[in-house]
Amino acid sequence: MSELIVWTYDWVPEGPRGFVRDIRLRWACEEAGLGYSVRTVPFSGRGIEHLARQPFGQVPFLSDGELELFESGAGLLHLARKSEKLMPRDPVGEAQTLQWTIAALNSLEMVTVPWWFLEVTGAKDNHLTGWLESRLGHMENVLKEREWLAADRFTVADLLMADVLRVAKVRSFGARPATESYVTRITDRPSFKKAQADQVAHFAAADKARSRQA
Amino acid sequence: MSELIVWTYDWVPEGPRGFVRDIRLRWACEEAGLGYSVRTVPFSGRGIEHLARQPFGQVPFLSDGELELFESGAGLLHLARKSEKLMPRDPVGEAQTLQWTIAALNSLEMVTVPWWFLEVTGAKDNHLTGWLESRLGHMENVLKEREWLAADRFTVADLLMADVLRVAKVRSFGARPATESYVTRITDRPSFKKAQADQVAHFAAADKARSRQA
Repeated sequence: MSELIVWTYDWVPEGPRGFVRDIRLRWACEEAGLGYSVRTVPFSGRGIEHLARQPFGQVPFLSDGELELFESGAGLLHLARKSEKLMPRDPVGEAQTLQWTIAALNSLEMVTVPWWFLEVTGAKDNHLTGWLESRLGHMENVLKEREWLAADRFTVADLLMADVLRVAKVRSFGARPATESYVTRITDRPSFKKAQADQVAHFAAADKARSRQA
Repeated sequence: MSELIVWTYDWVPEGPRGFVRDIRLRWACEEAGLGYSVRTVPFSGRGIEHLARQPFGQVPFLSDGELELFESGAGLLHLARKSEKLMPRDPVGEAQTLQWTIAALNSLEMVTVPWWFLEVTGAKDNHLTGWLESRLGHMENVLKEREWLAADRFTVADLLMADVLRVAKVRSFGARPATESYVTRITDRPSFKKAQADQVAHFAAADKARSRQA
């Protein structure tokens, strides 16, 4: 039996706590009932050792025995193959789960993250706003018609899409009630609550260790 | 035996010819020696029928018998499971192929496409340039050390990464010789040349049909 390890930073500032992407892997393990532990790499001074494991200097990465994968999306698809709770095993359900997982990464997050990046770096006119509105509008139309993205049940595609969309919530969902309701419903799952609380506690504990050192 | 169908537009303007993402699926089928046909949806007036099959109004999508998947990345991973030529079958090789396929979609293309979008929509200062340079710099370091991204052989991850990077080539590769050489090497493959020529011919044929109608 291989041991799952979710790798994240040893510490991050308060702002991103509850949003660092290790939450996706924690959440998936919780949903699937897969045992896992959490280990860390330094947030400050990401060096050669970190880059050898994650070439862009980010987190998370996932160890599974002899395997190691970076990219949260790859980690999720890997975990989905370990548990039917994350992805159905019939070809149609599996294809739908795969397409919506990739859509979250490449049709939504490809717009939400750069849009947010421009917001925080203070671009005067955010030229990605129209594109963001368009993609969120398409998603609203999809979510009006269904409760889950794939296979009429919760899958890893919902986990990822809800995580992408909750970050994009900086952009008001007021005019998009189906999206609002979807994100609320998916992030109300006990597995998400636990993953989020665990992540916040993990970084808060590092604060205490830091202040003892000071 | 199911029939693979790559769906794309019936026509596009000259600019994007050779770059429309159906090329990824054509290329993968050519590499794997999988038979496929190409069918079309209207470029002008994308309607309810198109949105029912691709909720963001884009192409390509892939039919495989009773299955249909949108998102080129999902189509590639689906094809990769049909042919060992696109993805090795050992767990380590498969995990590496998966992580680099997702990295192309979510660590590179998440920056290259919005960067390019800002360039063409004429944002005065492109605030994504620093981020783009950083990601391309990390890739250069990776490509200095290896010929292929995963498993010491060509995989679908190289196909996708080379396609993402050749579009980003609008940003000079002069200072990144390993990336330049990688993209040249991968896109020199006969399967890419054929996929690209076929796509260009497909849209050029539509020009002729249009001018006959006029």
